[in-house]
Amino acid sequence: MPDRLLIIGGNAAGMTAATWARRQNSSAEIIVVEKTPFISYSECGIPYVFSGQINSLDTLIRYQPQELLEKYQIKVLIQNTVESLNLSSQFAEVKNLAENKISKINFDYLVIATGAKAKVPNIEGLNLAGVFTLRHMPEAKAIDEYLKKNKPRNAVILGAGYIGLEMAEALRACSIDVTIIESSKKLLGNFDGQLKAQIINELNKQKVKLLLDETIHGILGSQKVEYVSASSGVINTDLVIIAIGISPEVSLARSSNIRLGASGAIAVKETLQTNFPNVYAAGDCAEVNHIVLDKPYYFPLGTTANKQGRVAGINIAGGRAKFTGIVGTQAVKVFDLEIATTGLSIDEAKAAGFWVKELSSHSVSRAGYYPGSEPIFTSLLYDERTGKVLGGQMIGYEGVAKRIDVIATALFNKMKVEDLLQLDLSYAPPFAPVWDPILYTVRKLK
Amino acid sequence: MPDRLLIIGGNAAGMTAATWARRQNSSAEIIVVEKTPFISYSECGIPYVFSGQINSLDTLIRYQPQELLEKYQIKVLIQNTVESLNLSSQFAEVKNLAENKISKINFDYLVIATGAKAKVPNIEGLNLAGVFTLRHMPEAKAIDEYLKKNKPRNAVILGAGYIGLEMAEALRACSIDVTIIESSKKLLGNFDGQLKAQIINELNKQKVKLLLDETIHGILGSQKVEYVSASSGVINTDLVIIAIGISPEVSLARSSNIRLGASGAIAVKETLQTNFPNVYAAGDCAEVNHIVLDKPYYFPLGTTANKQGRVAGINIAGGRAKFTGIVGTQAVKVFDLEIATTGLSIDEAKAAGFWVKELSSHSVSRAGYYPGSEPIFTSLLYDERTGKVLGGQMIGYEGVAKRIDVIATALFNKMKVEDLLQLDLSYAPPFAPVWDPILYTVRKLK
Repeated sequence: MPDRLLIIGGNAAGMTAATWARRQNSSAEIIVVEKTPFISYSECGIPYVFSGQINSLDTLIRYQPQELLEKYQIKVLIQNTVESLNLSSQFAEVKNLAENKISKINFDYLVIATGAKAKVPNIEGLNLAGVFTLRHMPEAKAIDEYLKKNKPRNAVILGAGYIGLEMAEALRACSIDVTIIESSKKLLGNFDGQLKAQIINELNKQKVKLLLDETIHGILGSQKVEYVSASSGVINTDLVIIAIGISPEVSLARSSNIRLGASGAIAVKETLQTNFPNVYAAGDCAEVNHIVLDKPYYFPLGTTANKQGRVAGINIAGGRAKFTGIVGTQAVKVFDLEIATTGLSIDEAKAAGFWVKELSSHSVSRAGYYPGSEPIFTSLLYDERTGKVLGGQMIGYEGVAKRIDVIATALFNKMKVEDLLQLDLSYAPPFAPVWDPILYTVRKLK
Repeated sequence: MPDRLLIIGGNAAGMTAATWARRQNSSAEIIVVEKTPFISYSECGIPYVFSGQINSLDTLIRYQPQELLEKYQIKVLIQNTVESLNLSSQFAEVKNLAENKISKINFDYLVIATGAKAKVPNIEGLNLAGVFTLRHMPEAKAIDEYLKKNKPRNAVILGAGYIGLEMAEALRACSIDVTIIESSKKLLGNFDGQLKAQIINELNKQKVKLLLDETIHGILGSQKVEYVSASSGVINTDLVIIAIGISPEVSLARSSNIRLGASGAIAVKETLQTNFPNVYAAGDCAEVNHIVLDKPYYFPLGTTANKQGRVAGINIAGGRAKFTGIVGTQAVKVFDLEIATTGLSIDEAKAAGFWVKELSSHSVSRAGYYPGSEPIFTSLLYDERTGKVLGGQMIGYEGVAKRIDVIATALFNKMKVEDLLQLDLSYAPPFAPVWDPILYTVRKLK
């Protein structure tokens, strides 16, 4: 039972750790240090503010610091950073950014929930006006202000990952011409083949220009961005969004000798403890166990951050909880398309030494005769030697994201592909064909 | 490898057995005997024709007999019934109903896919015009004709099960006043409490009158139905739909000494063999293994019939397949509501001797801030001693049917309730809140 719990980072993982620790323990002092002025908001919701589906960035904020103090007696220090940690003497040096003042905060337990930061390419022009990364609320506020003030007509998005594609949709909704520049030949990290083709088709339909396998040389302009120089030529633009990926924010952990894993993120146990028993890490700065690969992995996601924050908070407060790991589930809406994936991609599975076999099918979301039935493409991977399911990908116009959860649940249970066919999945004409797309796919097994 | 396969019943199970046997074996003679003029149609789609969402009953028919002959070399004898079976000498006496002629058909293998028939109450007036059961295409055609010719303004539906509620929606779409009379206090067989309250609320909103715990005394009228007499009074009506349940059609099996199970349906092995090794049964006339109860059960559903037909067809043709069983998954649309259930209800679980505990929650279908997010109520049952999940029920306005599949997959894998919280379910604001309703519910576990 700690006297004082200090949490570094006031978003998904940190705030969840704080509130769950409080639920378990009403007396401990809980202090959250957050470097920005914003806590407790949904990063994942940001693109939908730019698209106009959500009316303001403030809608994404769940709690203000004052509410957390009143409701949970959690003290939140916004615009404060932890400058250094002394883990043997159990204190942090905390800098108040507004007052430029450093003070010492002692703790019994510590949660590192420092999150992740946007990667940037090693090119010139990053400091020009109109060039943004997108990760946290301050960056979102800056983009929002720029959009309103400058009303850009063209945008270049660097990176065709989840945020890149969501931002493409958002900017098209503002009638901005969008060009996506992606350095690899794939989309969304590992989408290839049929799925890639369908996404490209959707981007074409939505008049998004996509340049794959393209090198970016620099961002140019005087003061404000004017154009982007890339391998296939020069693109005029009023706005650049950099969305080439994120990396864990671990500088404080590293300088404090908290162990990092091979992925570069903080190594944690199932309890979310680091190599220091009273120091926990959770969220986008921490590794997770990949259940299919059976090894630590970096897979930062909002839902994982919430689960990990809960586990850390419960354990610190004297309860018992564990975070078993992830299977690699992701879902994204790209304009009218729903795309979802879980487990390993073909390349990942091959690299891990599995004997990969693929089953795939074109099916439908509802009974074929029922109005609104939409096509769904399903790809399912399994290991030829063991029969175990390795992963699945689905794409379509409805009914995709929650269907992938069946494969995610199968992966968690290490199911064999042939046993998927036994699953008693729901059927009624408005919701599924009599052979649900997953069953229909497994039926192709010889 | 059979020389001749005879299949009794030309719908989901029978037709699927025929086509899968053909895929495995190109030379065997395959004969299907069907008593009605209709084969290979979706019974589950019938209500959506009456509602006008599907333009005609013929849309539900997948194959005509001639197509099956041409595409699969499957010979279909429509309007023929099997009068008797001689299993030791391996022949059937088949009556051509149109010509009133009996002939003998020898077989090496036999599939009994005789389906189910509508139960009827023991009351007067069943033969009046305007009184219908609804199960097969001929009954659907008769109702369709009656609706078009008589344009009824009032209807009474006996039974608040799946078909009763689907028909209530269909008839309301035709602007017919609908009264549902249900003899029990529950809806949809086992829905009680919060779920029942939500369905009743929806029926009220849709101006459907619901009488629960109501006894029906008789159906009255001269020639045509005029009113229904029930415990709370007399109801004027132009139409009565009887939907109080179905029972397996096993008269032929019984008279041939094919073993029936305790449920009254035909007992089968995982291979779908009956007690006669060359006689198989599949679909609504056969029992299934209930995986949660670990015993045979009667649970007739279209998706099960298709799976069983496939297994029977493959095994007869020399392949190897099995049907492991069901966990009790069902989904239904009732006006704007989506309702889904899997596993055991509280009463079933208690009756089976489990120490039943319930977790429940009110959650949402998408991120709370994302447009179109709708409430979902989830109830989850588990056994206090073993921690094993026993069942789940969900109700809401979107995202329900395919979410129940996660619980169905968990039941198949005999998961513990605490492990559900580890599931890596898909998350993106347009598809789910950061804690998916199932995770949100399990979080309530103490």
